[in-house]
Amino acid sequence: MAMDLHTITSPSFLKGLNNDQLVELSEDIRKFLIENLSRTGGHIGPNLGVVELTLALHKVFDSPSDKLIWDVGHQSYVHKILTGRASQFDTLRQFKGLCGFPKRIESEHDVWETGHSSTSLSAAMGMAAARDIQKTGNHVIPIIGDGALTGGMAFEALNHIGHEKTDMIVILNDNEMSIAPNVGAMHSVLGRMRTAGKYNKVKDDLEYLMKKIPAVGGKLASTAERVKDSLKYLVVSGMFFEELGFTYLGPIDGHDLEELEENLKYAKKTKGPVLLHVITKKGKGFLPAENDVVGTWHGTGPYKMETGDLVASSSKAPSWSGLIAETVRKLAREDERIVAITPAMPVGSKLVGFASEFPDRFYDVGIAEQHAMTMAAGLAAVDMKPFLAIYSTFLQRAYDQVVHDVCRQNLNVFIGIDRAGLVGADGETHQGVFDVAFLRNLPNMVVMMPKDENEGQHMVQTAIEYNGGPIALRYPRGNGLGVPMDSELKSLPIGSWEVLEKGVDAVILTFGTTIPMALHAAEQLREQGIQLEVVNARFIKPMDEAILHSIFGRKIPIITLEEAVLQGGFGSGVLEFAEENEYYGAVIHRLGIPDQFIEHGDVAELMDEIHLNSDEVVRIAKKLTAVQKAESNVL
Amino acid sequence: MAMDLHTITSPSFLKGLNNDQLVELSEDIRKFLIENLSRTGGHIGPNLGVVELTLALHKVFDSPSDKLIWDVGHQSYVHKILTGRASQFDTLRQFKGLCGFPKRIESEHDVWETGHSSTSLSAAMGMAAARDIQKTGNHVIPIIGDGALTGGMAFEALNHIGHEKTDMIVILNDNEMSIAPNVGAMHSVLGRMRTAGKYNKVKDDLEYLMKKIPAVGGKLASTAERVKDSLKYLVVSGMFFEELGFTYLGPIDGHDLEELEENLKYAKKTKGPVLLHVITKKGKGFLPAENDVVGTWHGTGPYKMETGDLVASSSKAPSWSGLIAETVRKLAREDERIVAITPAMPVGSKLVGFASEFPDRFYDVGIAEQHAMTMAAGLAAVDMKPFLAIYSTFLQRAYDQVVHDVCRQNLNVFIGIDRAGLVGADGETHQGVFDVAFLRNLPNMVVMMPKDENEGQHMVQTAIEYNGGPIALRYPRGNGLGVPMDSELKSLPIGSWEVLEKGVDAVILTFGTTIPMALHAAEQLREQGIQLEVVNARFIKPMDEAILHSIFGRKIPIITLEEAVLQGGFGSGVLEFAEENEYYGAVIHRLGIPDQFIEHGDVAELMDEIHLNSDEVVRIAKKLTAVQKAESNVL
Repeated sequence: MAMDLHTITSPSFLKGLNNDQLVELSEDIRKFLIENLSRTGGHIGPNLGVVELTLALHKVFDSPSDKLIWDVGHQSYVHKILTGRASQFDTLRQFKGLCGFPKRIESEHDVWETGHSSTSLSAAMGMAAARDIQKTGNHVIPIIGDGALTGGMAFEALNHIGHEKTDMIVILNDNEMSIAPNVGAMHSVLGRMRTAGKYNKVKDDLEYLMKKIPAVGGKLASTAERVKDSLKYLVVSGMFFEELGFTYLGPIDGHDLEELEENLKYAKKTKGPVLLHVITKKGKGFLPAENDVVGTWHGTGPYKMETGDLVASSSKAPSWSGLIAETVRKLAREDERIVAITPAMPVGSKLVGFASEFPDRFYDVGIAEQHAMTMAAGLAAVDMKPFLAIYSTFLQRAYDQVVHDVCRQNLNVFIGIDRAGLVGADGETHQGVFDVAFLRNLPNMVVMMPKDENEGQHMVQTAIEYNGGPIALRYPRGNGLGVPMDSELKSLPIGSWEVLEKGVDAVILTFGTTIPMALHAAEQLREQGIQLEVVNARFIKPMDEAILHSIFGRKIPIITLEEAVLQGGFGSGVLEFAEENEYYGAVIHRLGIPDQFIEHGDVAELMDEIHLNSDEVVRIAKKLTAVQKAESNVL
Repeated sequence: MAMDLHTITSPSFLKGLNNDQLVELSEDIRKFLIENLSRTGGHIGPNLGVVELTLALHKVFDSPSDKLIWDVGHQSYVHKILTGRASQFDTLRQFKGLCGFPKRIESEHDVWETGHSSTSLSAAMGMAAARDIQKTGNHVIPIIGDGALTGGMAFEALNHIGHEKTDMIVILNDNEMSIAPNVGAMHSVLGRMRTAGKYNKVKDDLEYLMKKIPAVGGKLASTAERVKDSLKYLVVSGMFFEELGFTYLGPIDGHDLEELEENLKYAKKTKGPVLLHVITKKGKGFLPAENDVVGTWHGTGPYKMETGDLVASSSKAPSWSGLIAETVRKLAREDERIVAITPAMPVGSKLVGFASEFPDRFYDVGIAEQHAMTMAAGLAAVDMKPFLAIYSTFLQRAYDQVVHDVCRQNLNVFIGIDRAGLVGADGETHQGVFDVAFLRNLPNMVVMMPKDENEGQHMVQTAIEYNGGPIALRYPRGNGLGVPMDSELKSLPIGSWEVLEKGVDAVILTFGTTIPMALHAAEQLREQGIQLEVVNARFIKPMDEAILHSIFGRKIPIITLEEAVLQGGFGSGVLEFAEENEYYGAVIHRLGIPDQFIEHGDVAELMDEIHLNSDEVVRIAKKLTAVQKAESNVL
């Protein structure tokens, strides 16, 4: 008999279930996920992979006093169901709805919020340190994927935890994928572990075998002794973690509830840090997702449950990622210096075509943003033209590398900042809204954003031709506008803006996604007798000083508009320009993202929520022109 | 006969030297370093440790076509001598003098600039990728310390290089220290390698031994087979790197020129990535530095060559690092929630006293800024009060962790931003000038900087008492002003400024190190009949809106002054406030660090170079008050 998942209020009911009941429950949960996500979309693959694991964790441990820390966090849906949130799944990842990641305000069982990868071990170390100081005796259990393990900070944490010998149970959820198939030497290490069989079993066998080694003397004696002393390092690759100070358990079948429970209980009794290696299958129980080898079913929009067909996007325009990546690919045919790099996002950044055409000039470095950026700098240092495609939110991970390696050495690195601006359903951990502010303060940096995909392709050409140092091209998530494309690429003058619409009463300076908003506002204003000039401020840094001087000279109100944080953003750059050039008395009004984190939801809804829409532009333009008029009347 | 090092113009002369001549040269170089650095100061310990290694590298390889990449770079002095820069050592680390790190404009042999640690492997991967595309056939040789190896990005690179099997010779310069003694599980791994003896020798012995294992059948057969197949993983810890896809060579004596040369030649012939493990002694050949166990002789000011006595600083005031750390320690006696964390800077951050008094509440996590920040967040998530002491320039490494883990979850992490502002001799890689701009744009962040050490201690109390989220306390390198200290600590209202001197003609808003400059300027101006109000804007975020409204209401010129970059900095915050509150017509002038990287040199000299001094404040104040007066006259 199927259980009504909506009746669950706390995971404590799991303690009383036997294995058969748990198996049945796992089937109910799978069915629930497949059905619900077919309507809402979401991270179906990762969650189907951890159904049994999550059940076993909540059965063996006592959340929330025991701390379950979900690395990345998109695999927390089963955890959400088991902690009383099944009824909210029809609002998953929607505005004001259930978050797609752990969220502290949603539940006391969400003790740590994630979104970016590889943070769980460090958080766990903090919570374990607190536990040891406060002597609360609880368990700390980070659950980390094999992909997230390639992130440098995960290694920093492993290194520290192993050194401190802190009690902790690290669950390595090994599905051989990050989002796309995994890369990196660690992947091979894990592969050897998977095929090596149970570590403890092998250790016992070896102990027996070693006794059969005949006694030897002379120069071999010390080696023989070492062999015997070092059994734990033998043969199976669990020693990689054992070397770092962890007790390695596994690998075990992550879909076998009894094996999971048995091993979790054993880990619970073990002193010091334990790493339990659990093999799971992404998409388990839903064939289209199980058979996915490239990562399509990692996270999806709505789909047809019966066939596994994705509900197609209605846009006919090219995706931004595709447009940029394909233009780079086109130029790479002429220019052998071009090398493309992605930190684990070959599909998301649409670099698959580039990779297949130029396998020797393409690098997927794994979840390793820092390495990706400095590797790009290394390429540029010997006169290559690296193109690094990286999501705005993940660029934060490579900030020091941008400052110290790229900008300081003034190297020709071309950074493609994908998913710039609000990203929607992934929410606050993924919004790409800080990069304008955190790049604009760096010397030597050029930052640009196109008004449409045609300008976007010219900006790729601009970036490749530019030899003055680092240059970043921001582009949003989603599709372009469907504009006609020039067949010839051209280079834009660095720092040049473009007046899109003339106007005498006020001027709006904006770039990228907010240009249509400004044009729409200008149209509305025109009907009300106000002529708003619209400027495509496509270079965020450096700015077009000639156009700025001309605008300030006209003494009309200036509005700046950006889908990025206001503090230190583009608008502040305009204020700085006015200050530096002593345009005292200028009337400037900045529109942008306020000083708060922006949650998940449809981008248009989010923009309305923070009053970043054409109505607001109209309102501000009317207000400022009235002020200006009043002041003129006084004089 | 001693060689005149000043006559060296290129390292090619080394090719013709025999071992005895090289040994003699190594002695000349040591003598040169000990003598020269006794006058200029510098990184004496690291350089004395790599004399033979550098000689061997330049003998075996052909720089600059072969790429020597010095991780961190403070160990590049011998390289600088061998590439024709001996005569510049009397200007080492001085304004317009020889840089203490590799510098591309100094020499074609400096192919990559460093300062921050752990970047060399990624840069090497970039250069090796370029080599393979361009088919230039050169060698790429990153030289990385065991300390730098704990940085996450080094692991990201190892993981990628091992996966790609790229030709490269990684020199692991293992001196068992980073700056302070090393921590972390990797340290133990390396320790086992050091004692394990030569890897290849052991492998041969094992092969022989294994043949003696009798044939076994049944369930043990597969284990026995695995033992035989997996010899390379046996016993010695070189397998840690072998696991990651590297050929491991060593460990070898880094002061034995013949052994170095032989192994480098062998590595040169080996396909794929090689890791050559070289054991060196920091400070080798200079007893005070050799015997250093805490890191005093890592980098020093001038010293007496004969006795090894450091030339004492003339300041009687407490060091900033010491003041902050000791105040945290004092509060930790009353508050068990306080935990101190440092990423490998226990001495620099003066946390040694805290560590010895509260060993269970102190964590040196190694060179692992990302982990340090998120571990602090983990502690705060369970209601502890973590204090993370981190240099401003290294905070850049933890930027995503500040955004995603700390600010987004609004956790009570207390960040002590040490070495904020210009740091002097370490130069452009170490200047702490970006943090104001890159923190000010983050929601939930409080940033403050004290005017003197008495206010500094109150700010520590403020940060500990504050429960509203993350709070950062900036403090500069060097010593305080020597002001009297209150015996009772008090908490400052968040966002409160302080008027230090009243004035009616203009106002200057500034904080921290530039307050004495502003006061001095006010004094000069007073003599010229201009009353400059001086405000201690000790909270950079949030700002004191009451004081700001009152100032803007008075319609007098406003000067902002900061030892931080102008783009998006504190002054821009004041511009933003004026814009948000529609103070059109306000006359504001920002002073700060211009949009360029600031090189090494004495801080006062650097400040003069960029016109950040009291003369400039006087000049601007006079100019603005004249403007204001002229405008008033018109009305």
